[in-house]
Amino acid sequence: MEQPSYLNALKIKSLGIDTYLENNIFMRSDCHICRSEGFTALTRLVVHHNEKSIIATLNVVHSELLQKNEASLSDMALKRLNVKDGDLITVSHLKPIESLSAVRAKIYHKKIDEAAYRKIINDITNGFYSDIEIAAFIAGCAGENLDLEEIIWLTKAMIDSGSKLTWDEKIIMDKHSVGGLPGNRTTPIVVAIVAAAGLTIPKTSSRAITSPAGTSDTMETITIVNLSIEKIKEVVNVEGGCFAWGRLARLSPADDILISVEKALDIDSTAQMIASVLSKKAAVGSTHVVIEIPFGETAKVRTRDEALKLQYYFRAVGDAINLNVEVLITDGSQPIGRGIGPSLEAMDVLSVLRNQKDAPNSLKEKSLMIAGVLLELSTKFEKGKGLSAARQILENGKAYEKFEKICLAQGRITEPNFAKYKIDINSESAGTVTFIDNRKLAKVAKLAGAPQSPSAGIYFNSPIGTKVEKGQTLFTIYSESEGELLYAEDYLKSVNPIIKIV
Amino acid sequence: MEQPSYLNALKIKSLGIDTYLENNIFMRSDCHICRSEGFTALTRLVVHHNEKSIIATLNVVHSELLQKNEASLSDMALKRLNVKDGDLITVSHLKPIESLSAVRAKIYHKKIDEAAYRKIINDITNGFYSDIEIAAFIAGCAGENLDLEEIIWLTKAMIDSGSKLTWDEKIIMDKHSVGGLPGNRTTPIVVAIVAAAGLTIPKTSSRAITSPAGTSDTMETITIVNLSIEKIKEVVNVEGGCFAWGRLARLSPADDILISVEKALDIDSTAQMIASVLSKKAAVGSTHVVIEIPFGETAKVRTRDEALKLQYYFRAVGDAINLNVEVLITDGSQPIGRGIGPSLEAMDVLSVLRNQKDAPNSLKEKSLMIAGVLLELSTKFEKGKGLSAARQILENGKAYEKFEKICLAQGRITEPNFAKYKIDINSESAGTVTFIDNRKLAKVAKLAGAPQSPSAGIYFNSPIGTKVEKGQTLFTIYSESEGELLYAEDYLKSVNPIIKIV
Repeated sequence: MEQPSYLNALKIKSLGIDTYLENNIFMRSDCHICRSEGFTALTRLVVHHNEKSIIATLNVVHSELLQKNEASLSDMALKRLNVKDGDLITVSHLKPIESLSAVRAKIYHKKIDEAAYRKIINDITNGFYSDIEIAAFIAGCAGENLDLEEIIWLTKAMIDSGSKLTWDEKIIMDKHSVGGLPGNRTTPIVVAIVAAAGLTIPKTSSRAITSPAGTSDTMETITIVNLSIEKIKEVVNVEGGCFAWGRLARLSPADDILISVEKALDIDSTAQMIASVLSKKAAVGSTHVVIEIPFGETAKVRTRDEALKLQYYFRAVGDAINLNVEVLITDGSQPIGRGIGPSLEAMDVLSVLRNQKDAPNSLKEKSLMIAGVLLELSTKFEKGKGLSAARQILENGKAYEKFEKICLAQGRITEPNFAKYKIDINSESAGTVTFIDNRKLAKVAKLAGAPQSPSAGIYFNSPIGTKVEKGQTLFTIYSESEGELLYAEDYLKSVNPIIKIV
Repeated sequence: MEQPSYLNALKIKSLGIDTYLENNIFMRSDCHICRSEGFTALTRLVVHHNEKSIIATLNVVHSELLQKNEASLSDMALKRLNVKDGDLITVSHLKPIESLSAVRAKIYHKKIDEAAYRKIINDITNGFYSDIEIAAFIAGCAGENLDLEEIIWLTKAMIDSGSKLTWDEKIIMDKHSVGGLPGNRTTPIVVAIVAAAGLTIPKTSSRAITSPAGTSDTMETITIVNLSIEKIKEVVNVEGGCFAWGRLARLSPADDILISVEKALDIDSTAQMIASVLSKKAAVGSTHVVIEIPFGETAKVRTRDEALKLQYYFRAVGDAINLNVEVLITDGSQPIGRGIGPSLEAMDVLSVLRNQKDAPNSLKEKSLMIAGVLLELSTKFEKGKGLSAARQILENGKAYEKFEKICLAQGRITEPNFAKYKIDINSESAGTVTFIDNRKLAKVAKLAGAPQSPSAGIYFNSPIGTKVEKGQTLFTIYSESEGELLYAEDYLKSVNPIIKIV
């Protein structure tokens, strides 16, 4: 963006204000620029430093926090513009963003073309959209408002918005599980098995957004997950696999921004979900991907029909971007494993990998199933032989050996811990467990502190079919502070039974 | 909202940060509440003080700006929660906002019921929605997504969201002009004529949002417009009319919030526009309203068909809420009057009211037409006699007399001034003016500083049909600073001719 020559500069003074992914600039209402340019609170403007520029939303300061010749930026904006205290910036009016007319067209339910999706995603990646403009785009994509062709265009635009990894190997494996099922932490086990089988699986994962733990939160209790693209390549080239946090690698930066607003709105968009998942797979250089879709009354996907619809889109869009996609539709009626929360899930993962006698069978068998399908999809293993091969690799200790090596290559291997405070939740009656509310269970774990407090969460003892006595422990809540434990307990008392016993 | 007892308090320290209508709270990332509650940047939370509570978006502070036991609020939030430095606040988690599920339904293009509109508007009025949630609602209402019944429900919900004025008189007049036409400042003249005719017209107006001046900006150069509800009643009870800024009276507070996000998105929603205009009329207690819809290639309403559609909705919704609505569809091809910008428009208004020889005829005749229709609509004047009655009241000085009295009742009467800096824009060729781009003309006036600088703007000399010589002044740009004058000139050079001469 060009920079008018007659604008005067302001000196940066960091105030240490964190507004997450949104760029904010703080300026005095009576500074010469606000006055001469007519900027008022919430004006969107362009901030320049050297050759760089960002777009930021103005927060006006009426106090002595800043001198008249000073300005501040939110933490992320400081980083994006690469400025520090004392650096000089200039500020100019924002020209109209052309791609917003395509967003408006989408809101009016018109079909928009490939170039329009490219422009929108490009502008979002460059930080040209405010959060409310992103919200409008998400609303425009909600429901069934994009046809297959548009989902493909959106996915391609998102792939091209970030870095793309390339590999020497021809076959690159990957997996994804659609969320909403507490404790469903198969990824570390699957990656270990597949890498131990000699295949390449450069797995990147996310942190929790609305759940008690993401794979990256869980693995962070064991190893370092904040890996740069270079480090991911290094680890994968030596060990065949990795457990990396995807965002740091900026593999699909537009998606990271979209997700932050999407989750705040809790809008379910088939198109955004398909594009989000597959763009990340393509960007990491994957060629063969297994997508698991658990469905159940309290899972993210509620019905089998919905799961089948997603299966259709995942495969059709996969075909269009040259991804070999296999979909597994699974039971989503209850948690997988026992732990819910980063450390507690990590303990489950380790016990399965170490073949401990008390390892949760649900987590072990599901991981083996996914790994088995991946092994067959790679064509390195015959149809029908994948599951037994996966089982062998897990049970003979090769998977755990590989897991340890990957963790060490990433920087450390440590044991997860239990939290200091805990309370047992006991059954008020005798009978058989017939129903579990996944959403409410996740909520309890979050109120107890997960994932911010890594060792907070739930240890779950009562899967469907369990026969329980009165007073028997159904689950245990763990917390790093007494206040949070109380908070989780309060919530528990305020809702219908999370576990039905008949 | 209930307030958990075990939450500790934070002490307010004002930082003087203005984020317009959005509530923001600033807290240290390492304060006990952020840590124990797991709050991170952009978390929406409830802030309590005494019996009051507001919802605010968290900005996390990583610096010494605040002590660990301190928190700050944005200026508007301080006001809404009624707290000052040293006051203690507590903070709790935000429970899910139920009406958002209706917003999601609307985004999926489902019809929602009257109760849903009431809940949404109620929650927006109470500040429970973040800007991105408001953006999602606006996107869901865009285009033709609401049927007539839904527009009526939305309008009724907006009427009930704020204060409502009542009057002893049975007939209460009002007017509204759909925007987009520079200089179209008929309101002060119409109000003066109608009030001088012995009718009651408690007119509230808005400030500019995307235009170079709103009626309130213009009238503020002559009198005080920031009137409380009590003051409006007092002035109108004595003089029959007023020129008040609507927002201060909080007559349709939901609308004020919606408009701030709507304008940022530049989304045109028939439903929102109808509901916005008519809810304000109903809230002020009006019974008989004239709506002017100027249409033209560069006006807000582009075609006659669009104007007719709006006419239909204005009348049908008016009927449903017992408002007697008359619609005037007018020519929107060029500015009305000569001034564009608060003071320059105020000068036009005064010259018409004072019957000066050089008063702009376009403004005079249009004001008379609207006033004439209002006089007839009131039934105090016979059909066909309104226009001549209005002309008489204007030309015999009664209208100006009334105008002066209203201004004095509001607190002062002063003369608007010209700005210090100016530049003439001259024709580069001889010929006849055939086309004027209203939007670009408005943009020049805004870049010159209007409405923040009241005397900035444009003095316009060349309506369609004007025969001009080469070098003749087409318009003059006024500005309060040299920088802004340069800025406006720069823009002018960068666009196609705003005035076509053939």
